[in-house]
Amino acid sequence: MLKDFVKAKRPVDEELTERVRSERAKLAACQMKIADKGLPVMVIFEGWGAAGKGSVLGKVIKNIDPRFFKVKTYPQRTEEDKRYPFLYRYMRDIPMKGKFTFYDTFWMEEITDGVLDGELSEEDYDLRIESIKRAERSLTDNGYLILKFFFHIGHKEQKRRIEKLLSDKDTKWRVDKNDLLENKHYDESLKVYDKYLKDTNSPSAPWYIIDAKDKKFAELQALEFINQGIETALKNSDLASPILQNTFKLKKTPLLKQVDLKDKILTDEEYDKRLNELQDELRMLHYKLYRRKIPVVIAYEGWDAAGKGGNIKRITGALDPRGFEVHPIASPEPHEKARHFLWRFWTRLPKTGHIAIFDRTWYGRVMVERIEGFCSENDWQRAYNEINEFEKELTDWGCVVIKFWVQIDKKTQLKRFKERQNTPEKQWKITDEDWRNREKWDQYEEAVDEMIQKTSTENAPWYILESADKKYARIKALEITIERLKKACGE
Amino acid sequence: MLKDFVKAKRPVDEELTERVRSERAKLAACQMKIADKGLPVMVIFEGWGAAGKGSVLGKVIKNIDPRFFKVKTYPQRTEEDKRYPFLYRYMRDIPMKGKFTFYDTFWMEEITDGVLDGELSEEDYDLRIESIKRAERSLTDNGYLILKFFFHIGHKEQKRRIEKLLSDKDTKWRVDKNDLLENKHYDESLKVYDKYLKDTNSPSAPWYIIDAKDKKFAELQALEFINQGIETALKNSDLASPILQNTFKLKKTPLLKQVDLKDKILTDEEYDKRLNELQDELRMLHYKLYRRKIPVVIAYEGWDAAGKGGNIKRITGALDPRGFEVHPIASPEPHEKARHFLWRFWTRLPKTGHIAIFDRTWYGRVMVERIEGFCSENDWQRAYNEINEFEKELTDWGCVVIKFWVQIDKKTQLKRFKERQNTPEKQWKITDEDWRNREKWDQYEEAVDEMIQKTSTENAPWYILESADKKYARIKALEITIERLKKACGE
Repeated sequence: MLKDFVKAKRPVDEELTERVRSERAKLAACQMKIADKGLPVMVIFEGWGAAGKGSVLGKVIKNIDPRFFKVKTYPQRTEEDKRYPFLYRYMRDIPMKGKFTFYDTFWMEEITDGVLDGELSEEDYDLRIESIKRAERSLTDNGYLILKFFFHIGHKEQKRRIEKLLSDKDTKWRVDKNDLLENKHYDESLKVYDKYLKDTNSPSAPWYIIDAKDKKFAELQALEFINQGIETALKNSDLASPILQNTFKLKKTPLLKQVDLKDKILTDEEYDKRLNELQDELRMLHYKLYRRKIPVVIAYEGWDAAGKGGNIKRITGALDPRGFEVHPIASPEPHEKARHFLWRFWTRLPKTGHIAIFDRTWYGRVMVERIEGFCSENDWQRAYNEINEFEKELTDWGCVVIKFWVQIDKKTQLKRFKERQNTPEKQWKITDEDWRNREKWDQYEEAVDEMIQKTSTENAPWYILESADKKYARIKALEITIERLKKACGE
Repeated sequence: MLKDFVKAKRPVDEELTERVRSERAKLAACQMKIADKGLPVMVIFEGWGAAGKGSVLGKVIKNIDPRFFKVKTYPQRTEEDKRYPFLYRYMRDIPMKGKFTFYDTFWMEEITDGVLDGELSEEDYDLRIESIKRAERSLTDNGYLILKFFFHIGHKEQKRRIEKLLSDKDTKWRVDKNDLLENKHYDESLKVYDKYLKDTNSPSAPWYIIDAKDKKFAELQALEFINQGIETALKNSDLASPILQNTFKLKKTPLLKQVDLKDKILTDEEYDKRLNELQDELRMLHYKLYRRKIPVVIAYEGWDAAGKGGNIKRITGALDPRGFEVHPIASPEPHEKARHFLWRFWTRLPKTGHIAIFDRTWYGRVMVERIEGFCSENDWQRAYNEINEFEKELTDWGCVVIKFWVQIDKKTQLKRFKERQNTPEKQWKITDEDWRNREKWDQYEEAVDEMIQKTSTENAPWYILESADKKYARIKALEITIERLKKACGE
């Protein structure tokens, strides 16, 4: 794309000034429309060192009220950053609905630098590209506007600029080693950038290559593309996107009605004995995981009153409190609802060596949100694939993902609901909503079955915990967890 | 994509039958919605020989009223076919709004066969892929739903099927040489298909790979994807798509107000002399073009009463009537309006060695359709690029594309309008619409300027014919035409 890049025609000075003025006004005027429509806008500036990204960015944001935008940069990964999946820090910073985030370089630089440094193998490059394509598609499918700029200057122009910056002690600091290397190996860099741009150019998030030789003209190009992109996106506030074919290997899992709860019982004695043994084992494993820096995600879903809480307690009871966190997931807060539905889970990921336990999860999208109409049909239909892709990011990163469905039958639920209602210290556990959900048992069962069938991937399979006897379910959860963690430790 | 293809789970017989029944009914039920919303649907079946494309296609169309669909196949190109651009026969057959076209193999097969036969170079392959990606994007951007299936079976399964077909004289004819070759070189074919699928997999027109081992299951997969695709597309009837950056080298051309009409005058004597000389030259060139099989497209746009008709006559006066055609372009007929706006031009392309002259053109999209609101703003804004891409297809094919803008000033137009009105035999040439258009002169001038600036590509530049003196404009048109044709003949 850079190789056959076609320069736009720079208008004459007077026209340029006038058009910049007009585009600035347009951008200023559309902030409120963006806020009203709840459009989240990501404006990504990539490009050659010293191409003037920062200066154009600075001019663009001057037209926007500071309450409506954020600017993000991604310096080299710290040791802390390295303990999260590749996409993590980028997903963490996506804008809320109705707001802008401007990126002074985004995920491109990390990848192309990796290639140029020889630190990113071809295979890993392909993985990264897949991750980015998926993430961008999932964001645009969920209503994000992604505007991607590459600031392009020639070899000599870059050299001239670097030398100019270096010659003044006030600007010297703006040139880093990478800029010098980039200029020295301009042609090689060009090839790598060109490939990356081609690999990530999609109709819904196309690249715009900015001819950055002239700063004012660069600003005009950026403004025009931003305004045009916003105008288009505002017209499509209610977009439905194709449901993609599943590309993940699925594990055979039973339908809920095929789950036999009957003989899944333990005596108190058996339970106590096994519990002690398993917790001891898990405790030791936790240290091992910690040392080996293996991240773990344990996801709990299940019927109300199925015993999720007690089950989780038996896991955490064996864990070092410095090494795990439990995330109870209720309905999303406004600031969460205003982002991609997976955002609140991305931001709750454990770092390597840590365990995150989710009490209810991202599967809310295909259960409660589906049934209560909190998202569109297209949204939840797309979500199976979006979730599989999310979990793929986790397992590719080396994370052990364990998903439990805690199963009881309708009668058992009723018994437990009544018991809760009649036991003063348990009354807080039962709400009107629980009773309303119970009325929709059949709808939920259909949704859960579809969910488990479509998301029980080989890398992140579902396990069903028969919990008519809670003791049985707890022991089974511990056993499965231990088995999976042992495997992850190579045992 | 085929290499890591994940098979869907075949439901048990009873469920399969039930689901097929239900999907069939769904498809039958949505015909009327498609017709109402005016959705054009392309369903493309590609895949291995003997994978059962035809049989599934046969079953799918049984659910649709024959008035609502067509089935197309593309046998090997005839000599006639070869005289048109690669995309021509495919664009010719795109469906009308509200209708289906089913394709028993589309443009994929021609390309992958070309690769496997060694007849398509890597470079040409890349060109084809670009053409297809552009065409698919332009179609989906203009509201087409494109559903792409690849019927996948394994090496042994294919062999078994071919042998079975061959063993019966009633089915023997269904196996052709290509099927045998494909099976013999299964792995090589797989690689080529896989690359093609990956290269043409886009979020707006994704591939669906059908596990075609079981015929009924294959039918179910096709039906489900078709129904789901239609459902999604019906929700997006008013889609706006990103305006892409220009990627075509543009020629510097003046704004209309910069065009000096004053001294562009010829005496009758000069005119007659030059006309004779140039027409003689063009006549000879036409034969040369014919022999060398070079196709030519001459496009005329210009103000009403600028003298397009007379200008065209001076060109055609020099041409052998067997080798050219003039296409006067008025507002689109209903069957034309019901298709992609470029369809009526695709279908009017000359074959190699022939000249097609368009009296008004595809540029109506960015002039009259823009100004009269016959298309959406997003439509005409996208059209500059769509038109550049269209003309790129033509010039890549080897076509000489010459575009004339016939320029007069507003005063001259008024003079000619009055003259027409006062001359009985010319009165048919002037209508109320001409007067209405004249009132919008400034709007048109703005649109024309933008059009010429954005579409004067190096491969298909605009030429401005100063036509205050029609004689001058005619001679200039002949000179330019001759110059371009000479160059095309390598002179």
